[in-house]
Amino acid sequence: MTVNINALEKSPNGSEKYPNRGRLLVKCPDGPGIVSALSKFLFDHGANIIESSQYSSDPEGGTFFIRIEFDCASLAEKRQDMEMNFASLAKQFDMDYRFAYGSDRKKTAIFVSKEPHCLLELLWEWQSGDLQTDIAFVAGNHQDARGMVESLGIPFHYIPANKDIRKQVEEEQVRLIEEYDVDVIVLARYMQILTPEFVERYPNKIINIHHSFLPAFIGARPYERAYNRGVKLIGATSHYVTNDLDEGPIIEQDIERVDHRDHVADLKKIGRSIERRVLARAVKWHLEDRVIVHGNKTIVFQ
Amino acid sequence: MTVNINALEKSPNGSEKYPNRGRLLVKCPDGPGIVSALSKFLFDHGANIIESSQYSSDPEGGTFFIRIEFDCASLAEKRQDMEMNFASLAKQFDMDYRFAYGSDRKKTAIFVSKEPHCLLELLWEWQSGDLQTDIAFVAGNHQDARGMVESLGIPFHYIPANKDIRKQVEEEQVRLIEEYDVDVIVLARYMQILTPEFVERYPNKIINIHHSFLPAFIGARPYERAYNRGVKLIGATSHYVTNDLDEGPIIEQDIERVDHRDHVADLKKIGRSIERRVLARAVKWHLEDRVIVHGNKTIVFQ
Amino acid sequence: MTVNINALEKSPNGSEKYPNRGRLLVKCPDGPGIVSALSKFLFDHGANIIESSQYSSDPEGGTFFIRIEFDCASLAEKRQDMEMNFASLAKQFDMDYRFAYGSDRKKTAIFVSKEPHCLLELLWEWQSGDLQTDIAFVAGNHQDARGMVESLGIPFHYIPANKDIRKQVEEEQVRLIEEYDVDVIVLARYMQILTPEFVERYPNKIINIHHSFLPAFIGARPYERAYNRGVKLIGATSHYVTNDLDEGPIIEQDIERVDHRDHVADLKKIGRSIERRVLARAVKWHLEDRVIVHGNKTIVFQ
Amino acid sequence: MTVNINALEKSPNGSEKYPNRGRLLVKCPDGPGIVSALSKFLFDHGANIIESSQYSSDPEGGTFFIRIEFDCASLAEKRQDMEMNFASLAKQFDMDYRFAYGSDRKKTAIFVSKEPHCLLELLWEWQSGDLQTDIAFVAGNHQDARGMVESLGIPFHYIPANKDIRKQVEEEQVRLIEEYDVDVIVLARYMQILTPEFVERYPNKIINIHHSFLPAFIGARPYERAYNRGVKLIGATSHYVTNDLDEGPIIEQDIERVDHRDHVADLKKIGRSIERRVLARAVKWHLEDRVIVHGNKTIVFQ
Repeated sequence: MTVNINALEKSPNGSEKYPNRGRLLVKCPDGPGIVSALSKFLFDHGANIIESSQYSSDPEGGTFFIRIEFDCASLAEKRQDMEMNFASLAKQFDMDYRFAYGSDRKKTAIFVSKEPHCLLELLWEWQSGDLQTDIAFVAGNHQDARGMVESLGIPFHYIPANKDIRKQVEEEQVRLIEEYDVDVIVLARYMQILTPEFVERYPNKIINIHHSFLPAFIGARPYERAYNRGVKLIGATSHYVTNDLDEGPIIEQDIERVDHRDHVADLKKIGRSIERRVLARAVKWHLEDRVIVHGNKTIVFQ
Repeated sequence: MTVNINALEKSPNGSEKYPNRGRLLVKCPDGPGIVSALSKFLFDHGANIIESSQYSSDPEGGTFFIRIEFDCASLAEKRQDMEMNFASLAKQFDMDYRFAYGSDRKKTAIFVSKEPHCLLELLWEWQSGDLQTDIAFVAGNHQDARGMVESLGIPFHYIPANKDIRKQVEEEQVRLIEEYDVDVIVLARYMQILTPEFVERYPNKIINIHHSFLPAFIGARPYERAYNRGVKLIGATSHYVTNDLDEGPIIEQDIERVDHRDHVADLKKIGRSIERRVLARAVKWHLEDRVIVHGNKTIVFQ
Repeated sequence: MTVNINALEKSPNGSEKYPNRGRLLVKCPDGPGIVSALSKFLFDHGANIIESSQYSSDPEGGTFFIRIEFDCASLAEKRQDMEMNFASLAKQFDMDYRFAYGSDRKKTAIFVSKEPHCLLELLWEWQSGDLQTDIAFVAGNHQDARGMVESLGIPFHYIPANKDIRKQVEEEQVRLIEEYDVDVIVLARYMQILTPEFVERYPNKIINIHHSFLPAFIGARPYERAYNRGVKLIGATSHYVTNDLDEGPIIEQDIERVDHRDHVADLKKIGRSIERRVLARAVKWHLEDRVIVHGNKTIVFQ
Repeated sequence: MTVNINALEKSPNGSEKYPNRGRLLVKCPDGPGIVSALSKFLFDHGANIIESSQYSSDPEGGTFFIRIEFDCASLAEKRQDMEMNFASLAKQFDMDYRFAYGSDRKKTAIFVSKEPHCLLELLWEWQSGDLQTDIAFVAGNHQDARGMVESLGIPFHYIPANKDIRKQVEEEQVRLIEEYDVDVIVLARYMQILTPEFVERYPNKIINIHHSFLPAFIGARPYERAYNRGVKLIGATSHYVTNDLDEGPIIEQDIERVDHRDHVADLKKIGRSIERRVLARAVKWHLEDRVIVHGNKTIVFQ
């Protein structure tokens, strides 16, 4: 695939264009003065707020969440000071917080099996400049995607898998994740079960696409079960992976209408188009630090 | 409510305008010659096909379904002959079938509890000429809807209900259903459990609205459970009532998008607007004989 | 219509529940320090920010918009001081601004003609506690809606209208608007053209529903024209009325799918359900001060 | 791109699986006996009706349309006889008609410019077995798509174009269309104006994607104009090309929601995802003979 990526129009939010763009994510007990303190802090450090979204689970005694995107001249030089100075403010309000920077692109690993549609969509969004990430590598338990991946200059690692060699497979995967210093793992219809050890190693860092409108049709063969139940809509769900099967925090869901004429193969076909757009949105929001996990739910600041 | 119903534009499908309109619904083992035989039969009886929809579960050895809407001059006089003549054709192809006539409006009973939104939507659709039915009566286990219902000239029956007097309540309901010769019973957020005896008495004649996207959140308090699960879409499902709770054949479903800011009360509010349009569509399709139940699924010829 | 409104569940945002709730809307040239100054001001006056949404048309030299919803103990007593103190801050940043209070419900007048569907939807949303307003009166150039309106305890004024007596009609309307101290005028399919003088008297205070997906089918008979063009979707648009026909700032739009089987009467029927929900959303957002007009466009802080 | 196409699950409607599948499309003056005559004809020729859709513009004196999909053993041998015998039936009812066969895959040419998203979607749908066509060639006035196209084994023809050499460009295009015996020409964001002579040569055979919800924003720069108008939804429209700019019969339209934060570049990005799915659906329906043009409108038998 030799698309001239430079010919594609870049999104105005492309991180590479914004070396002075930063993001601050905060979670803390709600109370008076938080926004005032945060905005004063940023102003005092020469940062201009570009976008700000906040949410309070309950103005009386709940949890407060805020995501601030800001521009700041010479951010590369100032960020260390800024982070150091922020520590005391964070302590005062008992904040969990995180700074992220437009110049630090997250590194993504994509795991695939045979079906390429979700992978293709991610690669397409990435090529068109809409996924703010470096794709570190693609790992597949089948060879099918190799040509497409390598033609884009992305390393492809073939790791055959089955339940008897799960441990060895994951050792190899962990080795690659560490070698490439990966930040986020996307299961683009990977279809293999991960061990509890693997999942626990990467909390809120593994994004899966489940081919049903969860919590309907948890587990295997959701399209077959949707067909048998006679539903009039089918869906897909992207969520963080936890050790409760298909029970992790939901990032995004969508559906399409079906009818009695649609057999299982039709549901799968329609489902593929839902899966690819739901996963692409979830990954995009994660990469832009728009998703905050709170208990088993997500706050998504679109 | 004194809306001048004559001022409202009638749907071109209003049954009252079509005394010569008939419908023929057929279910039979698939095989060659069925459409040919049916269309020849109608042609020979002077009927002109207006709309025809068909479906085969499997062209090889499956079940064939067809719904034909036709016009036929002097249908009132001819229909008895037509039905008699049809019997031998039906026997030849082993058909389950049913004739329905535009001049025979179905009689509907609506059961409500406190929340009036689904009832209001049905009354509104009925007033605007879009539900081809006579509303025989509304029965409520609360008095709230009485004024609204009676102002439209529809009888309202107050039947207090709780689980201890379920039997008496249903005896009264059955009495009314028989007195008014009711064809279809709509549970417009009725919120009471029906006994197996009541349900079995009216197979595929009781339409319910469940306030979730089934099969997610079967049973009680679906909005609370949707909130706790952190779903990004909520839905509603209209289905025929069977004695498996919320497992009857689904007629229609729809959803709306929600987000982390929506508390349970917001989900309920958004849900009400989904519920009312999903139930109204299901009832409309049932009244127009567009729904065929097949096993635990429906064929809907929209 | 005698729905027991107390039986309906109230939205958690119902203004009557929030005597200490205020809103601050600001529009000013973008620049550093605005959010910091605003949040400090509110904090210093004992106000806790509940919800905040902002938008910058261009971080470099554009216009900045913010809507802040806050709670403040004893707001009724403090609001005069707060407003007075705000003046110097506003001057410093060259702000256009406006305070609004949960305890000051806006007063709405609704103009209707024959078709009641939009009026019904507004009344229904209002009854269920979702429109934060007092409906001052309904004025109609037909009598059809009188019964329904008066049964809810709302005054109905019959003002026959035609183009020859436009001036007298509007004099009567203006008299009522002033008598009732009306804040917003909703044209719920009113179907009469307003004079330039009337429109200019109420800038960004008259909300119309146009029965097409503007800018397609500006002007008369949009459903007929949509039918003739063979579109596959029809829509509705709610906008503020200006003296350029159907060219005012758009608040909300929505669409539904149609197909070749839908004749003009079907498009009108489908259209009614789009119109009522689009108008209801636009009015709701206006009443909650979520809409800021900027040139010929709107910023809607949902 | 080395996707193992055999690994992809085929749609059950894939033409290659149905050598005995035929389609009959008929348009004629409405009247009694048409369906009966058609279904008898097919039955007498050993054809079994699989799917049948019909539409009458007006049961009294309108035009009748029907699309029948049928299976018939040894269709390849029988089709000539069948067509010959049909002529007299067609004459009797004054029918315009057309037979199409699953074994005769249509040949498609795709014209592109720089933006590859619509081309990519078509190639993806084609690879996954969902477009029943042979892609004869892709022609581009830029080289960008060459690699991707050729990696799939499809010829790519580079034909530089500008308005001064329009005649020579079209001569070359016509030459290729004739050489490859092309049935349908898809303008996948081709961005060049075609001459009236070219358009007239291929009536109802050129499918375009326009990047607006027609008839809004006919002509150039629709996203810029949508941005300036402040619409809340943007759309795309696929239509047959006629010599009235953007006025040809509409096959499919769809929309997505946007808001005040979306600048022109965002509208273009969102628009791309609408364009690609709308064009893919329109092409799919055309290839399956589901679209009948009637005046300036289409009947689409989905």
